[in-house]
Amino acid sequence: MTTSDNTPESIKPASTQGTTNAIAIKNLKNKRLQQPTTDDLTHGIINGNMTALSRAITLVESTNKDHQKKAEAILNLCLPHANRSIRIGITGVPGVGKSTFIEAFGMHLTGLGKKVAVLAVDPSSTLSKGSILGDKTRMEDLVKNEHAYIRPSPSGNSLGGVARKTRETIILCEAAGFDTILIETVGVGQSETAVHSMVDFFLLLKLAGAGDELQGIKRGIMEMADAIVINKADGDNLKQAKNAKAEFGRALHLYPAKDSGWKPKVLLASALKKEGISETWELINTYWLLTKDNGFFDSKRKGQNKFWMLQTIEERLKSDFYDNPRVKQELDRQLSLLDQGKTTPFAAAEMVLGIK
Amino acid sequence: MTTSDNTPESIKPASTQGTTNAIAIKNLKNKRLQQPTTDDLTHGIINGNMTALSRAITLVESTNKDHQKKAEAILNLCLPHANRSIRIGITGVPGVGKSTFIEAFGMHLTGLGKKVAVLAVDPSSTLSKGSILGDKTRMEDLVKNEHAYIRPSPSGNSLGGVARKTRETIILCEAAGFDTILIETVGVGQSETAVHSMVDFFLLLKLAGAGDELQGIKRGIMEMADAIVINKADGDNLKQAKNAKAEFGRALHLYPAKDSGWKPKVLLASALKKEGISETWELINTYWLLTKDNGFFDSKRKGQNKFWMLQTIEERLKSDFYDNPRVKQELDRQLSLLDQGKTTPFAAAEMVLGIK
Repeated sequence: MTTSDNTPESIKPASTQGTTNAIAIKNLKNKRLQQPTTDDLTHGIINGNMTALSRAITLVESTNKDHQKKAEAILNLCLPHANRSIRIGITGVPGVGKSTFIEAFGMHLTGLGKKVAVLAVDPSSTLSKGSILGDKTRMEDLVKNEHAYIRPSPSGNSLGGVARKTRETIILCEAAGFDTILIETVGVGQSETAVHSMVDFFLLLKLAGAGDELQGIKRGIMEMADAIVINKADGDNLKQAKNAKAEFGRALHLYPAKDSGWKPKVLLASALKKEGISETWELINTYWLLTKDNGFFDSKRKGQNKFWMLQTIEERLKSDFYDNPRVKQELDRQLSLLDQGKTTPFAAAEMVLGIK
Repeated sequence: MTTSDNTPESIKPASTQGTTNAIAIKNLKNKRLQQPTTDDLTHGIINGNMTALSRAITLVESTNKDHQKKAEAILNLCLPHANRSIRIGITGVPGVGKSTFIEAFGMHLTGLGKKVAVLAVDPSSTLSKGSILGDKTRMEDLVKNEHAYIRPSPSGNSLGGVARKTRETIILCEAAGFDTILIETVGVGQSETAVHSMVDFFLLLKLAGAGDELQGIKRGIMEMADAIVINKADGDNLKQAKNAKAEFGRALHLYPAKDSGWKPKVLLASALKKEGISETWELINTYWLLTKDNGFFDSKRKGQNKFWMLQTIEERLKSDFYDNPRVKQELDRQLSLLDQGKTTPFAAAEMVLGIK
C-alpha cells in the first residue's frame, strides 16, 4: 500500500518499503532522533522509497525557508533521474467521473507494468487546503496498489505557487521511478491552462449532452485537448454518447492543425464498466510514438521549461515591486489622482515607476 | 476639409482653420522660424484648431524623447478638457465593410450636430507603418466633412505602444471638442482586447453566413460586444441576415449578464444603403443613458484608466529587467542549462532574478 503524507512528522516505518538505500532507511527510522539529510532523502527517492518521496514532496510544499532550501537541493540531485515519463493531464467538469476514470485508467496501466503517480492541481485548494484527491476512498483499488502513488492537491496562495509545487513534485515522482504521471484538474478556473503547460498529453473528459461545449470553446479548453473521452457511454446513454462523439469530431475539425502533427481524437468510454480504457492508453501511446519520433515531445518539454522560468521571473518582478511600501504609497496616490481625472494612466505609471 | 499629418514638418497654413487662439495661429504660421510651444499647441487644440491637434498627435506618436516630453505637457494641460465624449469601438473581420459603415455612421452623427473623430488600432501597423485608415479615399464624404477628423493608425513596436498612443490621441481629440470617438480595429490579433479596454461601447460588425462564429466565441470577441450589427443586410442577402440575427441573439443569451446591466443587441444594417445606421446610434444612445444613470459608464472609465496604468507599469518592469545586458547574459546561460536538463525552471529563474 502506498500512502502520502502532508506533514513532515508522519513518517511511516521504513519496513513497509521495498529495496532502498540502507543509510536512508536507517535515517528515516531514527527520524525522531535525527532529521534525514537531503542526501538520505535523495537516495531514498532514487531507490523508490515512498516515505522518502512523500517527505521530499512535503518539503517542496512547505512555506518554511529552510525546508525550501532542502527541497531545492533534493530537486537538483533528482534532476538527472527525472524526465523519463509521460505526463498526462486529465480535466473535466465536476460530475464527469474523473476519479472513476483515473482509478480504472491507473489500474489498467499498473497491469501493464507501469508505475503510476497521480497528482492534482486545484485552484480552489489555494483557499481550502487541498480538496481534490483528498478523498482517496474514491480510488480505493489504486490507493492499495503498490505500483501507484497518489498525492492530494497542494495548497498555496496562488495558482502559480500550486503549479510550481506540482511541477517540482513531478520531478521527484519521476526520479522515484514513476513512468506515468497523471495530473488531474477540476474543470473550473485557470487550472487547465496551468496543467496544459506541464503535461505531454491533455485529455478532456466529457459527458454526452452536458451542454457545456460553448464553455469549453470559450475558455480554449477544447483547443488544448489532444483527446476527448466521452465518459459514461453505457446503457441508455450510449446512443447519445455516439452522437456527441460525431459532434465533437466535427468541432475539432474547425481548429487549425497542431504543431505536434497530431489530430485530436474523440473516444467513448465507460470508466465504471472499464470500457474504452485500454483504447485511451493505446491512443496516448500512438501520440507518444509520433511526437517522440518527430521531435515535438522533447521540444514541447523544453518550451514548457522556458515558459515556467519566464513566468516565475515575471511574477517575482511584479511582486517585488508592488511589495515595496513606498511603491504602494505612490501607487495609491496616483490611483487617487487618476480617479479624479488629474493625470493620465501613462503619466501616473511613470510616477510609480520612478520610485524603484 | 480636415486632414491629418504624420510628420511634424507638414503644418498646414493656419488660415484654413476656424476660430483659434491668435497667438497659436501666429506661432503655427511662423513655424519655419519658430517651433510652436506646448502652450501654443494646447491653446490651439482647446480652440478646435485641427492643425494644432494633428501636430500634437504627431508629438504623441514620436519616438523622440524631446517630443514625448512636449506631448506629456500638452496632455496634462488638455486633461481637464477631455473625457466629455462617448468612445465607440468598431471591429469586424476584413471584408465586413467597416470603412463603409464608419463613413455612413460618421456622416449620420455629424448630421445630428456631433463632432466625430475616427482613430484606428491596427497591430499589423507595428510592422508595416500604418495600414488601416491609411486609405482615406474609402471614406470620401467623411474626409471632406468639417465636423469630422480622421487619423490613420499609429505605428509602433508593440500593440501596447500603439494602444498608448491611441489612448492619448483620444484625450487630445476630446480636448479639441470631439464628442464622439470612433475607434476602428481590424478583426485579427489581440487588437480587439486593447480597443475594448479603451472604449465605452464595443460594436461588432458581422456578415450573415460568414462562418466565423466559432472564432468570435473562441477569442472572446462576442463576449465583449455590446451590440452586433449584421452589415450588408440587403437584397438577396436579407433573408440570410435575418436568420443570422436570430442565431446571434440566441448565442448572446448563453453569456452571463454584464455588469453594465445592458443586454447586448443584434441589429441589421446596410451601410451602403444607409439602413440601420440611425438605429445603431439610437441603440448606443440607450446604452449611454442607462450606464450614465446606473454609474457603470464612469466606473468603467476609471477601471480602464487603472488597467492601463498597471499594464504600463508591468510592461516597463519587464523591459527594464530584460534590457539589462547582465540579465540577458544570465538568462541565456540559464536557458542553456535548462535545455540540457541541468536545472529546474524555478532554480533558473532564481539565478536570473539574482542579477537585479
